Amino acid sequence: MNLSIPPTMATTSLFVLSRYDALQQFRTVRQDSENLCKPLKIEDYVIQTNPQASPAKWHLAHVTWFYETFILTVFSQNYREFHPRFRYLFNSYYEQIGEFFPRPQRGWLSRPTVEEIYRYRAYVDEQMVQLIESANEKDWVNINARLVIGLHHEQQHQELLLTDIKYNLAVNPLRPAYREDLPTTPCRTAPKLNWLEYSGGLESIGYDGEDFAYDNESPRHQVYVPPFRLASRLVTNGEYLEFIAAGGYEHPALWLSDGWSTLQQGSWQTPLYWEKIDGQWWQMTLGGMRPLIVDEPVCHVSYYEADAFSTWKNKRLPTETEWEIAARDLPRRGNLRDSGFLQPIVAEENHELLQMYGDVWEWTQSPYIPYPGYRPQPGALGEYNGKFMCNQLVLRGGSCVTPANHIRPTYRNFFYPHERWQFKGFRLAEDL
Amino acid sequence: MNLSIPPTMATTSLFVLSRYDALQQFRTVRQDSENLCKPLKIEDYVIQTNPQASPAKWHLAHVTWFYETFILTVFSQNYREFHPRFRYLFNSYYEQIGEFFPRPQRGWLSRPTVEEIYRYRAYVDEQMVQLIESANEKDWVNINARLVIGLHHEQQHQELLLTDIKYNLAVNPLRPAYREDLPTTPCRTAPKLNWLEYSGGLESIGYDGEDFAYDNESPRHQVYVPPFRLASRLVTNGEYLEFIAAGGYEHPALWLSDGWSTLQQGSWQTPLYWEKIDGQWWQMTLGGMRPLIVDEPVCHVSYYEADAFSTWKNKRLPTETEWEIAARDLPRRGNLRDSGFLQPIVAEENHELLQMYGDVWEWTQSPYIPYPGYRPQPGALGEYNGKFMCNQLVLRGGSCVTPANHIRPTYRNFFYPHERWQFKGFRLAEDL
Amino acid sequence: MNLSIPPTMATTSLFVLSRYDALQQFRTVRQDSENLCKPLKIEDYVIQTNPQASPAKWHLAHVTWFYETFILTVFSQNYREFHPRFRYLFNSYYEQIGEFFPRPQRGWLSRPTVEEIYRYRAYVDEQMVQLIESANEKDWVNINARLVIGLHHEQQHQELLLTDIKYNLAVNPLRPAYREDLPTTPCRTAPKLNWLEYSGGLESIGYDGEDFAYDNESPRHQVYVPPFRLASRLVTNGEYLEFIAAGGYEHPALWLSDGWSTLQQGSWQTPLYWEKIDGQWWQMTLGGMRPLIVDEPVCHVSYYEADAFSTWKNKRLPTETEWEIAARDLPRRGNLRDSGFLQPIVAEENHELLQMYGDVWEWTQSPYIPYPGYRPQPGALGEYNGKFMCNQLVLRGGSCVTPANHIRPTYRNFFYPHERWQFKGFRLAEDL
Amino acid sequence: MNLSIPPTMATTSLFVLSRYDALQQFRTVRQDSENLCKPLKIEDYVIQTNPQASPAKWHLAHVTWFYETFILTVFSQNYREFHPRFRYLFNSYYEQIGEFFPRPQRGWLSRPTVEEIYRYRAYVDEQMVQLIESANEKDWVNINARLVIGLHHEQQHQELLLTDIKYNLAVNPLRPAYREDLPTTPCRTAPKLNWLEYSGGLESIGYDGEDFAYDNESPRHQVYVPPFRLASRLVTNGEYLEFIAAGGYEHPALWLSDGWSTLQQGSWQTPLYWEKIDGQWWQMTLGGMRPLIVDEPVCHVSYYEADAFSTWKNKRLPTETEWEIAARDLPRRGNLRDSGFLQPIVAEENHELLQMYGDVWEWTQSPYIPYPGYRPQPGALGEYNGKFMCNQLVLRGGSCVTPANHIRPTYRNFFYPHERWQFKGFRLAEDL
Repeated sequence: MNLSIPPTMATTSLFVLSRYDALQQFRTVRQDSENLCKPLKIEDYVIQTNPQASPAKWHLAHVTWFYETFILTVFSQNYREFHPRFRYLFNSYYEQIGEFFPRPQRGWLSRPTVEEIYRYRAYVDEQMVQLIESANEKDWVNINARLVIGLHHEQQHQELLLTDIKYNLAVNPLRPAYREDLPTTPCRTAPKLNWLEYSGGLESIGYDGEDFAYDNESPRHQVYVPPFRLASRLVTNGEYLEFIAAGGYEHPALWLSDGWSTLQQGSWQTPLYWEKIDGQWWQMTLGGMRPLIVDEPVCHVSYYEADAFSTWKNKRLPTETEWEIAARDLPRRGNLRDSGFLQPIVAEENHELLQMYGDVWEWTQSPYIPYPGYRPQPGALGEYNGKFMCNQLVLRGGSCVTPANHIRPTYRNFFYPHERWQFKGFRLAEDL
Repeated sequence: MNLSIPPTMATTSLFVLSRYDALQQFRTVRQDSENLCKPLKIEDYVIQTNPQASPAKWHLAHVTWFYETFILTVFSQNYREFHPRFRYLFNSYYEQIGEFFPRPQRGWLSRPTVEEIYRYRAYVDEQMVQLIESANEKDWVNINARLVIGLHHEQQHQELLLTDIKYNLAVNPLRPAYREDLPTTPCRTAPKLNWLEYSGGLESIGYDGEDFAYDNESPRHQVYVPPFRLASRLVTNGEYLEFIAAGGYEHPALWLSDGWSTLQQGSWQTPLYWEKIDGQWWQMTLGGMRPLIVDEPVCHVSYYEADAFSTWKNKRLPTETEWEIAARDLPRRGNLRDSGFLQPIVAEENHELLQMYGDVWEWTQSPYIPYPGYRPQPGALGEYNGKFMCNQLVLRGGSCVTPANHIRPTYRNFFYPHERWQFKGFRLAEDL
Repeated sequence: MNLSIPPTMATTSLFVLSRYDALQQFRTVRQDSENLCKPLKIEDYVIQTNPQASPAKWHLAHVTWFYETFILTVFSQNYREFHPRFRYLFNSYYEQIGEFFPRPQRGWLSRPTVEEIYRYRAYVDEQMVQLIESANEKDWVNINARLVIGLHHEQQHQELLLTDIKYNLAVNPLRPAYREDLPTTPCRTAPKLNWLEYSGGLESIGYDGEDFAYDNESPRHQVYVPPFRLASRLVTNGEYLEFIAAGGYEHPALWLSDGWSTLQQGSWQTPLYWEKIDGQWWQMTLGGMRPLIVDEPVCHVSYYEADAFSTWKNKRLPTETEWEIAARDLPRRGNLRDSGFLQPIVAEENHELLQMYGDVWEWTQSPYIPYPGYRPQPGALGEYNGKFMCNQLVLRGGSCVTPANHIRPTYRNFFYPHERWQFKGFRLAEDL
Repeated sequence: MNLSIPPTMATTSLFVLSRYDALQQFRTVRQDSENLCKPLKIEDYVIQTNPQASPAKWHLAHVTWFYETFILTVFSQNYREFHPRFRYLFNSYYEQIGEFFPRPQRGWLSRPTVEEIYRYRAYVDEQMVQLIESANEKDWVNINARLVIGLHHEQQHQELLLTDIKYNLAVNPLRPAYREDLPTTPCRTAPKLNWLEYSGGLESIGYDGEDFAYDNESPRHQVYVPPFRLASRLVTNGEYLEFIAAGGYEHPALWLSDGWSTLQQGSWQTPLYWEKIDGQWWQMTLGGMRPLIVDEPVCHVSYYEADAFSTWKNKRLPTETEWEIAARDLPRRGNLRDSGFLQPIVAEENHELLQMYGDVWEWTQSPYIPYPGYRPQPGALGEYNGKFMCNQLVLRGGSCVTPANHIRPTYRNFFYPHERWQFKGFRLAEDL
């Protein structure tokens, strides 16, 4: 296997970590994944209730396979793969690495067991630590570049792990909680919605710093932006209830054509995870079933729903450029995973522009396409971002299950417009 | 819930067990189910890899729900259901009991956990023992009738448990064994195939004894049977290989029209579980991957394959009447579950007519329809057999995973013609 | 192409027609097909609105292809096929003749045009007449055997032509009539339903005469029949309305398991072609939309509906043996195609046992399987009947669109239990 | 019905035609549609062989319904609809007008007949002429605005009519020609490919003139464009054959992820309509089957294929902005419908930048999204363009079946990335 990946593959990072820092970060990220699984029963690791989601044990193994494939088998002399079939079982979509087990059937695998997967993790961890400590200097530069991708990759899967667990527990008629001990939203009223003005003009967006960023955030480039206004906070459940009450799900004129078909096929009448029980709205959370809080941001909506709501309000969604311009000078803080809620919370009046980071990934109206001058690199890691640049839309800002050190103003997340199982919401914009 | 089921519901048993015998049998059957699961990992209990199959933990809970629903909630005063939602989760298909969780999604349920299901079993067992010991005499007659059905029902699910586990492990690219310690087939050559003659005439088939039998085995009735010949043993893998080599899977003229479509849609080229590895035929068994033994009976074939093979041989499959006439005076012995192989084995020359019981369920050419005079009983237990009397075919004789005390000459099993995951094979017949 | 078909292929006819009679019959049947199409617009010949149905022009061409393939290319020296691709386009399902155009796409073909197909018919007719007149005596015996099949085959397609035209016009929101000039049902009340008793015993059924019959009606054989009662007439729309009013389509306990699934998937609430308009029941007929006549036989019901109604009435459907025993001595008369209604009509009190021939094909509870001793012949014509002997049920007696000279007491028609677009109804039976 | 559509609905036209000019244009466009259908047989008008395509008679009726619905029923006093159900049958997708007949079933309708549809056209034409001549001045301004949309709408359907006819004839195994008398491509070699440089900068695109343009071409707005190079001509069949020969359809690394899935599901190995017969490449054209001309532009490719080819060449597709900048000063000439080829032809060396108009719609890499400041108008005509602004991509320049007076530099056509049945090709671009 000749991966022939240039060291800076799929990233623009120019900075090489010290071995000490690398070990620290590696251990932290690896431990985080396992900590997130602590509340799970063995049975919870196994199931897949949606072809887009994956079993928890698959996530744990796949992120491990990533280090094994892209680092250990390349740089570690005499490395023995833990198991010859894991390459087949735990490759997600890297066509250049070879065939892979079909995604919708990941829930068919009772073996390897959870225990075996933890042994796989321990084995790879040990080999990785050894390699980090002992690699020669020339290799280290390359290993470092791939390691940093591997860690960000694992953090992305930590977020997916939580969204997939939520989905798996929500389809169970018993509606079990992932954790019974999660805090609830602070008891307060959502701040009044204000409209912040931006003058636009010829702006630059995209990453060009020296820290890590994905290749899809580059090159930094100029964009002409007409003046615009941005809502000071996210749309709330209460505002969304008004949309529903006004017949939002019944008027095709509010919807994109593909959205209206999707709504009809899925018999959508609310965001995902909402249930009306005895006249009262509830929603499934990682903490189990809870009454719907009207002041919390609306969450688990598709692009189609965000767009229809905006049309109904005579507004629109922001572009990713508008979002980035507004966000770039804000402190990178918010209700991210580290705050421990694992659920969007009511906004707190602490800035002019609220909730830009955390709570929910914000739908933008920007299709996920390459920035001018972007070119995916050759080799298997080039499949990381570029091959998805069609039919998806950009989301910005991270959510309540995104690790705090994983987000930045230039970060481009992307999903298909009909998908709802991630923590997604939106804020409004308008032309000035 | 008023089940209003007459005591002899779905059965023709007239015999009332002593409480002592009832307890013995109850304990044995209940223990058997749990023993069969001993080799499983927790993960193995959870998955469902086929909409027709069920997770092991679902089987364990469903058979328990049967006693709870049809006995405890009816006869046990102040009985408290173990969990209010289990009625919904573990009802299989009894429309009259209420809504049930969709069958193809049984693998979506990580909860209740395996441990909780064992607690559910223990709870119901305890309540059942108490009821058996303490019910008044009048109730006892009725409880006994339902208990006997419940035990036979659980035995049927023990067979399904093994076939479903086999399927689940076989689709896993690791091909794990259910048990590494299973014996292999005795090393011998299949006996020469003889043709046994039967003169036919006006015969009677069906059950009219005093032991337990399902309602679909009655009434005993007259059938006119032309003279016929029956093959002395089952068709072997070796004979089936000749069919394959002769292009059996390529000539539509050999196949029923629906069979040919099924073959093409499924890209069938062999029985289920066969794999050619480096020029050698292997088959997946409950003991893991094993080289194909040519003298063993062919197994895991659909009705369409059995019929096509027969056409190719210029023979036909027997009718269920022919099978019953030939079997009724034979000793009820064979390679059933109790022999411990859990796999069909090479026939032994010990009778004129071999392998009638055990090894594989034998496809007959008889559609599964009611016997003249059959009428399903009112009430939910009436759904047990009658509502399936369309589109399926009768199989006879039990298999290597059927409990030895569960089979009898009049027993009618039934499956759709395309289904292959049960242990099914066939013997040939011809007109005289 | 070597068809190697023995002359008596797929038939038991022993009788050889005179050439004069053959020509007469050939011309009559050929003309009948074209007469049936006279009310059609060119556009009506083209469409296919159901994968089971075929365009009218396809029927006209396919029956012609049958003579071309099985007679002209075999017996007519130097015969030139009308068009080299018609063999591919107009073969229905004879795998042994070669590949054929996919059935569900027959409505994709605007060419050959209707005019070309009439030219194809004229060409084949001319060649056939020549061959009939000039074939040597030895060939004539064989040609005769195939010709007779060809004529019955064309008559079967005449029936399908009408049922398919009805379906095509019924799905059109304009509900156009096939013929505006069709007579309506005689104005009378349905006779009282009586129960006729039959003593049963060892009976013989099946064909063994010297006229034409299909191979599936043979061999004549013995069957033991318990005594039974048969309803004197068909179930009426009025009786069926009572079933609907009693919640027949809402109680799963009345339905076969596969029937209940089919009903739910298809959202069935009535027979096919019924519509409630402004509180009044209407039905689509070949004469256009008409108010539902309660005394007419119910028509366009599936086996599942016939079975559920019978269960609700605490009766059952007759077996095909019972039907044949009751019908064999009746005059072969009824509301067949020649009576010109093209719609079932209210029964007339003229026998003890009414409506056995014509009006609707009567569902029996008998699966369509081979009679004892039946063996399909080798060669392509052997695909005519035998390969469908699985998953279908026998219907008896012909319908209002069956040619009067095409029906006989031993005639076995067969369809899948869910199919409704043929003219199908039922009568009740019960054990004595 | 209150359509409440402002007069300039879905257009930016400010210019009001004289009644004389309006009548001229109306008659020309209406006659063009009927002329295009002259080569058709009645049968060709009826069929639908693809859920995306429509029968010719549906196109003829739908464009007529447009005038009836948006003009006659609004402005013509006492107007009587030609047929009360045509509103249901011939509405394409205007949800605000009411329910419509399902698109995939348009081929189910044998009625109304072709003749009736021509009568419908004549009726509406007569009423329209009368209204144009007699409307009062105030109405005329509004009628004019809608009439102009109606005419452009009909021209769009003329293009679809030809692409759908091509598809319908191509799936027919007889491969009939639409017209036997079509000219073939001029016999010449494709010009050498040159790279033209553009300096980019802050540019303006979009329509702001006084003639007709669709609403989606506005507002004219500023875009920052990095410098770029554009290929002087379209990619040819010969160049595409090299891509195929190099394994283009076998290497997933060249493809977008969704493209690779689409290719696998459709078993794509070439553009649509290519066939290899006896080692020679042929393609289906409106003139029937013709040998593939290597110097002609490649046609009937999806976005995925255009993108994969570009990746293989280490180039990219142009953005719609780049295309418009390059095209805006060129003469609006090319191989459009009026040139009579109805097939892309070999480029002629007559400019620096060739084939920008006509031959094939050119895929751009730009998703079809609203221009900044775009807002779809309220009312049913607002559904014309805006509701499709998701999941589709922009194509520019018109094709060999686009009317010459229907194209302009700002024209935005849009299709889903997998669609191939339109006349679509591409040219390459690269960063400078």
